Amino acid sequence: MSSAKSITEKLRESARLVDEYMDQVLRVRRPEALYRAARHLIEAGGKRLRPFLLLKACSLVGGEQREAVPLAAAIELLHNFTLIHDDVMDNDDFRRNVPTVHRLWGVPIAIASGDLLFAKVYEAVGRWAEERRPPLERALAIMEKVTRASIEICEGQVLDISFASLKGVTEEDYFRMIGGKTAALLRSSAEIGAIAGGGGGEEVRRLGEFAYNAGLAFQLVDDYLGATADEKVLGKPVGSDFREGKKTLIIVHALAHAPPEEKKRILSALGNPRLSREEVKEVTEILEALGSLSYTLERAREYVEKAKDNLRGFPDCEAKRDLLDLVEFFISRKY
Amino acid sequence: MSSAKSITEKLRESARLVDEYMDQVLRVRRPEALYRAARHLIEAGGKRLRPFLLLKACSLVGGEQREAVPLAAAIELLHNFTLIHDDVMDNDDFRRNVPTVHRLWGVPIAIASGDLLFAKVYEAVGRWAEERRPPLERALAIMEKVTRASIEICEGQVLDISFASLKGVTEEDYFRMIGGKTAALLRSSAEIGAIAGGGGGEEVRRLGEFAYNAGLAFQLVDDYLGATADEKVLGKPVGSDFREGKKTLIIVHALAHAPPEEKKRILSALGNPRLSREEVKEVTEILEALGSLSYTLERAREYVEKAKDNLRGFPDCEAKRDLLDLVEFFISRKY
Repeated sequence: MSSAKSITEKLRESARLVDEYMDQVLRVRRPEALYRAARHLIEAGGKRLRPFLLLKACSLVGGEQREAVPLAAAIELLHNFTLIHDDVMDNDDFRRNVPTVHRLWGVPIAIASGDLLFAKVYEAVGRWAEERRPPLERALAIMEKVTRASIEICEGQVLDISFASLKGVTEEDYFRMIGGKTAALLRSSAEIGAIAGGGGGEEVRRLGEFAYNAGLAFQLVDDYLGATADEKVLGKPVGSDFREGKKTLIIVHALAHAPPEEKKRILSALGNPRLSREEVKEVTEILEALGSLSYTLERAREYVEKAKDNLRGFPDCEAKRDLLDLVEFFISRKY
Repeated sequence: MSSAKSITEKLRESARLVDEYMDQVLRVRRPEALYRAARHLIEAGGKRLRPFLLLKACSLVGGEQREAVPLAAAIELLHNFTLIHDDVMDNDDFRRNVPTVHRLWGVPIAIASGDLLFAKVYEAVGRWAEERRPPLERALAIMEKVTRASIEICEGQVLDISFASLKGVTEEDYFRMIGGKTAALLRSSAEIGAIAGGGGGEEVRRLGEFAYNAGLAFQLVDDYLGATADEKVLGKPVGSDFREGKKTLIIVHALAHAPPEEKKRILSALGNPRLSREEVKEVTEILEALGSLSYTLERAREYVEKAKDNLRGFPDCEAKRDLLDLVEFFISRKY
């Protein structure tokens, strides 16, 4: 049963608290360009899914959400740091309907502003610990989750880059890559919320798995939308993944199942940055005919079910319903 | 009075412990390219000045150096993270006599490997806290010092970049910039050593100031050597600062004191990446005639004296002599 407020309203509510906190932590000072660049994508929007996940996980184990806001902000800062650097690495021009940081300030300041956000992650965690005075154990566990996610994101991003020049990427490779690039941070978000809320080891583990599975589903839907969504709603050009030669699950599936002729066509177009809209459309039709688009959505649905299963043991309450609504949103979203 | 072993021998001794620890923390795993890239500059050498500073500060306040090795490693990881990103930002080709990370692995992996090292900084701090179980207070103070230095480095680096396109950089601007870019990390190193060693607030403060002043001297000597040193010994081309249009104190001084004709000559050559060795030599002679090279060394000597003053209150002991030898080394070094 869904609660009275919609998930998007609820996302907006928790985002307000988190945004306020980030605004404080990122007060503009000298050199201004550095701080403006660091704030750019945060101010451009974003759904604040990870903070929501963290706060609801905290609440689900009996913690006080409000007290975990600095940690939720830390996770969102971490997410935005990785976006800035990813955009440089992938040479992407647009995100959230605005030009990327390196497009506006150049690569050097984009790198530095990502680094600044990364440092601010730990500043926020430190502030939380100063305020809350948790047992050393708990503070270290939270720091470890932040650090582990950061490491896995680096690993996932480099796998992603290396896949672009590989022909034989398997589904297993693909899931390892998105596990690092996307799902690891969602897992850490839920785990941190659960630890901060005073959850026990088993609760932390189950919420972490829930978020990891939800994260895989999220990325699969991202791949799907990147190939099919409305450009304005998406905030970036449709087909950029394809033009960059990204091995999404769509492509991995298609290359494994296409007859020689189609396979050749896909490979010849994949990774060509100058592909026209028409050519992208033509390839998308091949992918559709191969069932690769629907296969990707099916797998996403499968992980959503796994995620829901992970929450089975928790008592019914608003936070649990919110988390279930969140994964439903992951798969039904149009952007 | 100097101790029996030379400072370079002592640096090598403490480096061994720190390198062993870094080697563990950076065990190569998948994706290999990421870990190889992250290890590249660390394996290429480096003097390990910051770890030495940290360990000696720890010892000076009565702490056990060996116990602070993970923190010393954390600081060296942080330093190397900033080097990798700086080299991308400045588009430098060589450091420590080897090609820079982005030259060997490309910009995307260089960015990711710097990020990985940054995460590993906090992993090392976390490991130290797990092992040592300090009071929460002390663990947070150390984390705060790491984070603060990281933020100041970002700020200093962006100031440095922005100065390249400014004509009117003052000495004050210059010292703010190197304060962030170089001296902040030395200050944090000493402070962290002192905190880990159980030092009181006043000891931490004085050791921090000592290291900050030593750091300013270090950077001034760096500027000087960058314009005058032997290329092989330096590990990078002489004159790169000048070709990149960096506002070193040499340049700031020269532009403030040169007659119109010389000033024009300097400005027309500054920031020209294609400047020949002969042209660099010609400009260096102008800088020499203006007294800008010797002025820079004089200021370095002044900060070395300030640094020594900061140690006055500490009782005479081996650690204090080591720190005094270290700042002497800062100013007498040839590389």
